[in-house]
Amino acid sequence: MRVLGIDPGYDRLGVAVLERNGSKEHILFSDCLITNRKESHAKRLSFIGVEIKKIIETWQPEYVAIEKLFFNQNITNGIKVAEVRGVVIYESHLAECIICEYGPQEIKVAVTGYGRSDKASIIAMVKRITGISKPKVLDDEYDAIAIGITCLAHEGSVKKSLST
Amino acid sequence: MRVLGIDPGYDRLGVAVLERNGSKEHILFSDCLITNRKESHAKRLSFIGVEIKKIIETWQPEYVAIEKLFFNQNITNGIKVAEVRGVVIYESHLAECIICEYGPQEIKVAVTGYGRSDKASIIAMVKRITGISKPKVLDDEYDAIAIGITCLAHEGSVKKSLST
Repeated sequence: MRVLGIDPGYDRLGVAVLERNGSKEHILFSDCLITNRKESHAKRLSFIGVEIKKIIETWQPEYVAIEKLFFNQNITNGIKVAEVRGVVIYESHLAECIICEYGPQEIKVAVTGYGRSDKASIIAMVKRITGISKPKVLDDEYDAIAIGITCLAHEGSVKKSLST
Repeated sequence: MRVLGIDPGYDRLGVAVLERNGSKEHILFSDCLITNRKESHAKRLSFIGVEIKKIIETWQPEYVAIEKLFFNQNITNGIKVAEVRGVVIYESHLAECIICEYGPQEIKVAVTGYGRSDKASIIAMVKRITGISKPKVLDDEYDAIAIGITCLAHEGSVKKSLST
């Protein structure tokens, strides 16, 4: 089972390809896509879409897992993140992936066993589960890995799927 | 100057291709895309993206004009409409169109000359400007035509552009 985990964002978007062999999760690839603030809105959105398409073509995940969007105070930014989600879901569906979404609490439970874990505990647990050894990893990348772990834990449960 | 006007929506999305020859606006094509409520979220989003791509390929507009998104009470629906906007902006940018967005008031001013016009006055004015003679036109389709008219009136002003 191979999954592409995505932490959707407009300025930065975390991506991680994970696979489970037996009971062990492996990271095949992870990155943080950073859009250029000097570029137009359409160009930044398209950069993300084109990169996601390339990653799917390269890694051929069966599942794409994306974090559910909750609106906080900043509506303008929320709209942009929703637009990014639209592009990501679109490219994933065109590539015939099964798309699952998970809320923050589900991700915390899947990774640490506790729904109110803080960021530091999640990162510590992600390191422990995956044995990630990259020298510099951004938070968005850890979040993408955590979302991937959640999808593997749920075995891409159809209940959480946006595409079935 | 040829423009594709889009009234973004999740259940229904209005599209209209307009052209100005001299001082007269002509409708080359208009329609209302209706997504199937029985389909998955990803499939409904992708249906819209694929259709928009086809319309752009067929009609080759230089401009795509889309209505600005404002959030009202229904956040869940707002997120879906933003996801649709993302897909539309993405396909338009890949096709190298200039993408402009307009708010409801700008559209009212451009079509009727008055920023607080009601729906009936806008529809009456759209009919008068374009001489549209289709027997059955849905509101979303009229809205898409009105957005197209707004873009023609502004001559696709770069100030309103999402892509420059």
